[in-house]
Amino acid sequence: MPCGTGQRLPRFSPDEPKPFPNCGERERIRRTRAAEFGFNDVDPLNLLAIEVEAGPDAKIVPLSSGLPDGLFEHDGQITKREIRAATLSALAPCAGERLWDIGCASGSISIEWLLRHHANQATAIEARPDRAARAARNAAELGVPRLQVITGEAPGALKGLVRPDAIFIGGGGSAELIEESWTSLKTGGRLVANAVTLDSEKLLMEAQGERGGTLTRLAIERLGEVGGRRAFRPAMTVTQWSAVKP
Amino acid sequence: MPCGTGQRLPRFSPDEPKPFPNCGERERIRRTRAAEFGFNDVDPLNLLAIEVEAGPDAKIVPLSSGLPDGLFEHDGQITKREIRAATLSALAPCAGERLWDIGCASGSISIEWLLRHHANQATAIEARPDRAARAARNAAELGVPRLQVITGEAPGALKGLVRPDAIFIGGGGSAELIEESWTSLKTGGRLVANAVTLDSEKLLMEAQGERGGTLTRLAIERLGEVGGRRAFRPAMTVTQWSAVKP
Amino acid sequence: MPCGTGQRLPRFSPDEPKPFPNCGERERIRRTRAAEFGFNDVDPLNLLAIEVEAGPDAKIVPLSSGLPDGLFEHDGQITKREIRAATLSALAPCAGERLWDIGCASGSISIEWLLRHHANQATAIEARPDRAARAARNAAELGVPRLQVITGEAPGALKGLVRPDAIFIGGGGSAELIEESWTSLKTGGRLVANAVTLDSEKLLMEAQGERGGTLTRLAIERLGEVGGRRAFRPAMTVTQWSAVKP
Amino acid sequence: MPCGTGQRLPRFSPDEPKPFPNCGERERIRRTRAAEFGFNDVDPLNLLAIEVEAGPDAKIVPLSSGLPDGLFEHDGQITKREIRAATLSALAPCAGERLWDIGCASGSISIEWLLRHHANQATAIEARPDRAARAARNAAELGVPRLQVITGEAPGALKGLVRPDAIFIGGGGSAELIEESWTSLKTGGRLVANAVTLDSEKLLMEAQGERGGTLTRLAIERLGEVGGRRAFRPAMTVTQWSAVKP
Repeated sequence: MPCGTGQRLPRFSPDEPKPFPNCGERERIRRTRAAEFGFNDVDPLNLLAIEVEAGPDAKIVPLSSGLPDGLFEHDGQITKREIRAATLSALAPCAGERLWDIGCASGSISIEWLLRHHANQATAIEARPDRAARAARNAAELGVPRLQVITGEAPGALKGLVRPDAIFIGGGGSAELIEESWTSLKTGGRLVANAVTLDSEKLLMEAQGERGGTLTRLAIERLGEVGGRRAFRPAMTVTQWSAVKP
Repeated sequence: MPCGTGQRLPRFSPDEPKPFPNCGERERIRRTRAAEFGFNDVDPLNLLAIEVEAGPDAKIVPLSSGLPDGLFEHDGQITKREIRAATLSALAPCAGERLWDIGCASGSISIEWLLRHHANQATAIEARPDRAARAARNAAELGVPRLQVITGEAPGALKGLVRPDAIFIGGGGSAELIEESWTSLKTGGRLVANAVTLDSEKLLMEAQGERGGTLTRLAIERLGEVGGRRAFRPAMTVTQWSAVKP
Repeated sequence: MPCGTGQRLPRFSPDEPKPFPNCGERERIRRTRAAEFGFNDVDPLNLLAIEVEAGPDAKIVPLSSGLPDGLFEHDGQITKREIRAATLSALAPCAGERLWDIGCASGSISIEWLLRHHANQATAIEARPDRAARAARNAAELGVPRLQVITGEAPGALKGLVRPDAIFIGGGGSAELIEESWTSLKTGGRLVANAVTLDSEKLLMEAQGERGGTLTRLAIERLGEVGGRRAFRPAMTVTQWSAVKP
Repeated sequence: MPCGTGQRLPRFSPDEPKPFPNCGERERIRRTRAAEFGFNDVDPLNLLAIEVEAGPDAKIVPLSSGLPDGLFEHDGQITKREIRAATLSALAPCAGERLWDIGCASGSISIEWLLRHHANQATAIEARPDRAARAARNAAELGVPRLQVITGEAPGALKGLVRPDAIFIGGGGSAELIEESWTSLKTGGRLVANAVTLDSEKLLMEAQGERGGTLTRLAIERLGEVGGRRAFRPAMTVTQWSAVKP
C-alpha cells in the first residue's frame, strides 16, 4: 500500500519478451492485478523486481508521520493528525525498535510507529474489546498486521511483555501507570504522554518535575463554519510530556 | 546515519571464517570503522550485507517527521519541530516524489522530505546566500547531499525546474508566488504554506477561498521559566494552508 | 438593582422617631419594600436618603465590566463575559458619552456601557426583531431602560442618529459598514470590532492597516468535562480591532 | 480625574452674575484652575455644583475595568489590560466592599477596584518595598489615595486586617496562602487567583477541585512585528481560578 514511484509502466501485453533493447534474453515483463498474481510458469531460479502501481481507488499512505484521520476507522477517540505527527516526532522511532501504546483506542500511534520501518514492533494495550478489535482491523487494513493487540487494563496487562524502546500513554494514565512504564522502559527509551483532562495535566506536570524531559502544549484550530461562513474551530488543547530515560 | 537495529554484533576478529554454524564456506564477517572501509581483498563477484553500528557520539536520526531542532544548524529561522511534523504530514511525501521548498532557510523541510525515501527529490530555493549554504551543509550532514539548493528569489528562480509533486512556502509568499506555484504543481500535488505575519495570513485565507483545501492554526507553548519557576512560553501561532491540486 | 453597601440597617418599626441619638427632631427612618413605596404623609419640603437593601433573591449587578452571562437573556448569541470585559475596556466609556452598538444581539455591550454612568447613552441596532426585543427586555431588567433599540440593518439604519463617542461592531460587519462607522464617529472616539469568521478577521486586518489602532486575539478556555473528568473547553478565538479616530 | 461630560461651558468672566436667564438672583458661575481654587469670598451657607473640565494634557480615566497599561507606573510586572478586565469581572465589586490584593505589584487591581465606587476599600499587600511604594504612587496619581498599602509577606501580613469581600492573589501563592485567604473571606465573598507558572496552575487546579468555583484560561496575542511586518505576539497564558465562598 505504500505509494509507488509514480512512474507508469508502458502497457505491454503480458510476458512480452525483450521489451527494452537492453533486456536480457530471458527477461520478461508481466503486468497483473495483485489478486490474480500467479507464477507457476517461471524458472525456479529467478530474480523478481516488482513495481506496484496504485489502482484508481487505492488509499495512498504517505511516508510522513501524521496520516489523515480518515485513513483510520475510529469512534471519534483518535489522536488527531497534527497531534499524532507531534507525538511520533517525540516518540522518535528507530529501525527495529519496540513501542508500547497504552490505551491505544484506534491504534493510530502504534500503526504509524510500525509503518516507519518493517523491523519495528508494537504492542497496543486497550481495555475496551471493541476498540482493541478496531485497532487490529486498522493495522491489517494499513499493511501492518504484525501489531500485537492486547485487550486489558494497564498497568496489569503490561506484565510479561518484552521491554520497549518507547512508550506512549494516550489519555488518562495514573501516577502508578507512569511509574510502571518508566521502570519498564529501556535505558535511552522515550516516554511520551498526552493529556486533555486537568487531572492528567497535573500528573504530567508532576512527572516532568520528578523525571525531567519537557512539556509542550499544542492548541489546534481547524477550518469550520459559523452561520455559513468560514471560521476556525478550536480543538481541546493537548499537554504533552516527553522524556528520555537516562 | 539512520539508526541501526540496535542488535549488537558479537565482536569477532576481522574476517573470521564461518562465524556461525550455518555460514557458507566462503562467508566472512568483518568489523571496521566507516572511515577505514577497504575491500581490495574480496572476490570481485560478491554479495555484501552491511550492518551499521552507531558510535557512542553518533547523532541518531529518527524515522519519524519532526526531527529535533538541534539536529539542524540554524540562525533561529527554522520551522520548529512540532510545526515541521505537521507540515510534513500535510506535504504527505510518497516514494520518488519531488518537492519544491520555497524560502527554505535551514532546509529542514526539504531534508525531512528526502529522508522519507531514498528515491525522493527536493529543490530548495533561498534568496540569502548564507542561508542557502547552510541548507546545503545541513543536507550533507544529515545524509541527503542530493538536495538541490538554488540561491535566488522565487518565483523567478522557479523557471525551468522540473514540476513538483509538492510545494512548501515557508513564510511570506505573495499572491503571485502562490499563483505560480499552483500552476507549476502536478495534478494531485500538494501545496502547503505556513504564515505568521498578518499579510501572509490574509493571503492564505484568500488562497483557501479561491482554491479550496483547508486552513489550520497551530499554537505551541514550550516549557520555559519565569523567575526561576517552570512556565509555558508561547511561540507565535502558525496558520497553515494545505490544498491538493485537482 | 446596583448592589447596596452591605451594611444592614437594624430592623426598626416604620417611622420610629429619633432612632439614633444624633438624629434631628423631625428625622424618621422608614423601611418598606420597593413595590409598596408611598410617601403621601411626609412634609412637602423634605430631604430623602434612600438605602436599598437587596432581597434574598435579588440579582446583584456588580460595578465592574464583564457581567456574568447569566444576567442576560440570550439565545447563545452573546459576547461572552471575558470578551465583554475586554471589549468594554477598549470602548473606554466616559461619563455622558454615547455608544452605537451595531448588531447588538442580546444588547449586553450597550447595557454595560449604560451601567457605567447614569449620563451615558446608547443606541443598539439589530436586524432581527426578536433579538431587538430581547435587547430591550434585558435593558429594562438590568435597570437601563433608556437604551434606544433600533430594528434595522446597518449602515442604512444609522442615518440620522446622533454622532457617537464610541462604536462597537459585534460580528460580521463589512468594509462599507466600517467606513460609515468611522466617518460617523466623533474625533477622539473609539471604534471597536470583534470577529470570529475568517472574512471578518481579514476585514479587521485591513482596517487596522488603513486606519491604525491595534489588533488583539483573545482565546478563552473554560472549565468543562470530558468523560466525567474536568477539562478545559476552548471557545472560538476572537480577533478585536480597536482604534481611536484622530 | 474621572472624565467630564464633555459639555464645554461657555467662557464667562469669573463670577459673572445671572449668566443664564433662569439663574437665581444670587447665583454665580466661576471658572478657575483646580490649583488656584479659593472660596473665601462666598456666603458660608451655599450650594456648590462643580463641573470639572479636562485640560489638554489630562489623563482621562475611563469608567470601565481594564484601564490602559500605560496609566500605571510599572516595572513590567503588571496584570495586562485584558487580563485585568477579566479579573475585575470575576472580583465583581459592589459598592462599599473591601478587597485584599495579595502580591499587588503595581497596584492596578486594587486601584481599579477602588475606582468602581467611592465607598470601596482595598488593602494591597506587597513584599518588595519598591513595588509597595510604586503601588501607593499609582493610587495617588489615579485619584484613589485611600488605597492601604502594606509592605510584607502574605499570609503573615494578613493578620489583623478587616475581613474582605473579595481577595485577589496575583501570582505564585501557596496552598497555605489559599487556605488562609479562604478562611478570612466573608461568606459570599469572591476569591480570584491568576497563575502563569506550572506550580501555581497545579495549585489552582487543586483549589478548584476542593472548593469549587471555575477555572478559565486566557491566551492573548497582541499586534507586534516580525521583520518589519505586522504579526501577533502571544503573551503567556493565564489560568484563573474564581470561586464564591458559600
